[in-house]
Amino acid sequence: MSVFLDALSGREPAHMPVWFMRQAGRALAEYREIRAEHSFDEVVHTPDLTVEVTLQPVRRYGVDAAILFSDIVTPVQAVGLPVEIRKGIGPVLDQPIRTVEDLDRLRPLEPEQDAPYVFESIRLLVDELGDTPLIGFAGAPFTLASYLIEGQPSRDHAITKALMRTEPLVWDGLLSRLADLVATHLRAQVVAGASAVQLFDSWAGTLSPADYRTFVLPYSRRVLTALDDLDVPRIHFGVGTGELLGLMAAAGADVVGVDWRVPMEVARERIPLDVATQGNLDPTVVVAGAAPALAATDDLLGRIGPRHDHVFNLGHGVLPPTDPGVLAAVVDHVHEATAR
Amino acid sequence: MSVFLDALSGREPAHMPVWFMRQAGRALAEYREIRAEHSFDEVVHTPDLTVEVTLQPVRRYGVDAAILFSDIVTPVQAVGLPVEIRKGIGPVLDQPIRTVEDLDRLRPLEPEQDAPYVFESIRLLVDELGDTPLIGFAGAPFTLASYLIEGQPSRDHAITKALMRTEPLVWDGLLSRLADLVATHLRAQVVAGASAVQLFDSWAGTLSPADYRTFVLPYSRRVLTALDDLDVPRIHFGVGTGELLGLMAAAGADVVGVDWRVPMEVARERIPLDVATQGNLDPTVVVAGAAPALAATDDLLGRIGPRHDHVFNLGHGVLPPTDPGVLAAVVDHVHEATAR
Repeated sequence: MSVFLDALSGREPAHMPVWFMRQAGRALAEYREIRAEHSFDEVVHTPDLTVEVTLQPVRRYGVDAAILFSDIVTPVQAVGLPVEIRKGIGPVLDQPIRTVEDLDRLRPLEPEQDAPYVFESIRLLVDELGDTPLIGFAGAPFTLASYLIEGQPSRDHAITKALMRTEPLVWDGLLSRLADLVATHLRAQVVAGASAVQLFDSWAGTLSPADYRTFVLPYSRRVLTALDDLDVPRIHFGVGTGELLGLMAAAGADVVGVDWRVPMEVARERIPLDVATQGNLDPTVVVAGAAPALAATDDLLGRIGPRHDHVFNLGHGVLPPTDPGVLAAVVDHVHEATAR
Repeated sequence: MSVFLDALSGREPAHMPVWFMRQAGRALAEYREIRAEHSFDEVVHTPDLTVEVTLQPVRRYGVDAAILFSDIVTPVQAVGLPVEIRKGIGPVLDQPIRTVEDLDRLRPLEPEQDAPYVFESIRLLVDELGDTPLIGFAGAPFTLASYLIEGQPSRDHAITKALMRTEPLVWDGLLSRLADLVATHLRAQVVAGASAVQLFDSWAGTLSPADYRTFVLPYSRRVLTALDDLDVPRIHFGVGTGELLGLMAAAGADVVGVDWRVPMEVARERIPLDVATQGNLDPTVVVAGAAPALAATDDLLGRIGPRHDHVFNLGHGVLPPTDPGVLAAVVDHVHEATAR
């Protein structure tokens, strides 16, 4: 059995589960070796490479879950939108989506036809991983919409938010299509063998609660409730979402991810008690070295207290300068400190 | 008399005061005209240009306060650190400060000798502005330290936060020196005629409350309390600081600036009642056009309620694509809606 699934299914796990957002990535020399030979896009579109980089952190860190190596724009590329991941910039779409006519460029996803490499990777991974669960993932409608509307990563999302406030038909059309596309993508990941899913709303934290509730929550709910019958834990996460935690739970999450800006005990008060939690360790503290990382880990364990529905994780992705040895030490420490 | 100073001195203002962070800037054609001929650094170092761009938004928008056009790195450059503002990047210091030996590069500021253009600009501005108060400003020690330690703008501040956790002598030495430098700079601005000051801690929002309290608050308090005897309102602001509002007040602020992520009535509960508030309007809503901007203004006025210790402002700086006509309409609307 899996401590990760135990913790998220109301069972008492043998110890607190641990995984790290962006655990597959540049902090690992073995990942950088692969990326020296293959572009990011190649890794995502080649099952053997996807499998290898997804497994690397499981081997290195002894984490209790793997997360599919993929990108939030993958399903959007799969239906034919020419989103390009440009080095040093991020996802770029040269002709952004801003009108009702543009919506036709976003057709429904046929998962196994449009993105066969994703589901092939999942099947291979589930075989390799044995008892270690695989987390599927997708970007949430708002975050995807921001990339498609801005045409490139944006700090302030001003064009996205202007369209959101002034073009209700385009907004509803785009977010609805994205919600269905993301739901289809996540369902297919679960059918292929993923044991849980994480919906990343990377940019939700740029919205006030009132705007989130009106313009975003209905579409994230459409994604999450479309998985109601599948009986897999649904993790919902964004950064800078301290004021949105309750609303992100209300969208249909079984687990809400918490960044490091909110003290864990405060976050817990904002999330309904029947919803589990994940995260909260400042990703920079593991860059600082083993001593500060373990001290911060103990501090966080104290704030979590005796609950067994928390998934230990950083409050955002692993930063490239992180020493993998420090992450491995954190995993061991959490396992030991929480063993029953 | 000034509605801005009234609101911040416990007197009932004739209407709610309004100004906008980064009100002097690229949203204004008359600013872009000047910048077409002069670099940012030239504008900051030439009193006639500083005065002109500081006055532009007062003429255009009818705001109730001007804010000195300057940069947070100005006093650091003034004591000889070669911080360069590089186009498209931001402040760059090729040899960052990371050791005890490096601290000697940061000598105390002699305001009128090291940065005469700042105080000359203030004196000229006070003459020109008449009853409209001028806000002086400076970057807070943590934000300045991040620039000096990273050597360039950083998204995660990982080097800064590693040093903060592992090099207590360097940290205390650097933040203490910066606190004294900033305090000296702000005092001199008040002596030259500024009627209020704003301490910008742009990056404080990347810290958990526990880290802020331990590593940052003592130095921001050192700055703000150094102005105790001057009897000018001290505004303290950062973005993404929802969890820090109480601590930022505790550092010695008379006014706490609030970004748009926290509903105003929630922010009010986190800030002591004897401390005033500022801000909270999403800077993207004024980009969206007059109708959404005025609707959001009314919504915010409703959340503020009958209090007369709020300064109307955006929750962060004016974005370049903002239509100045929309900002002018917001100013008029706030003035009319709150007139007594």
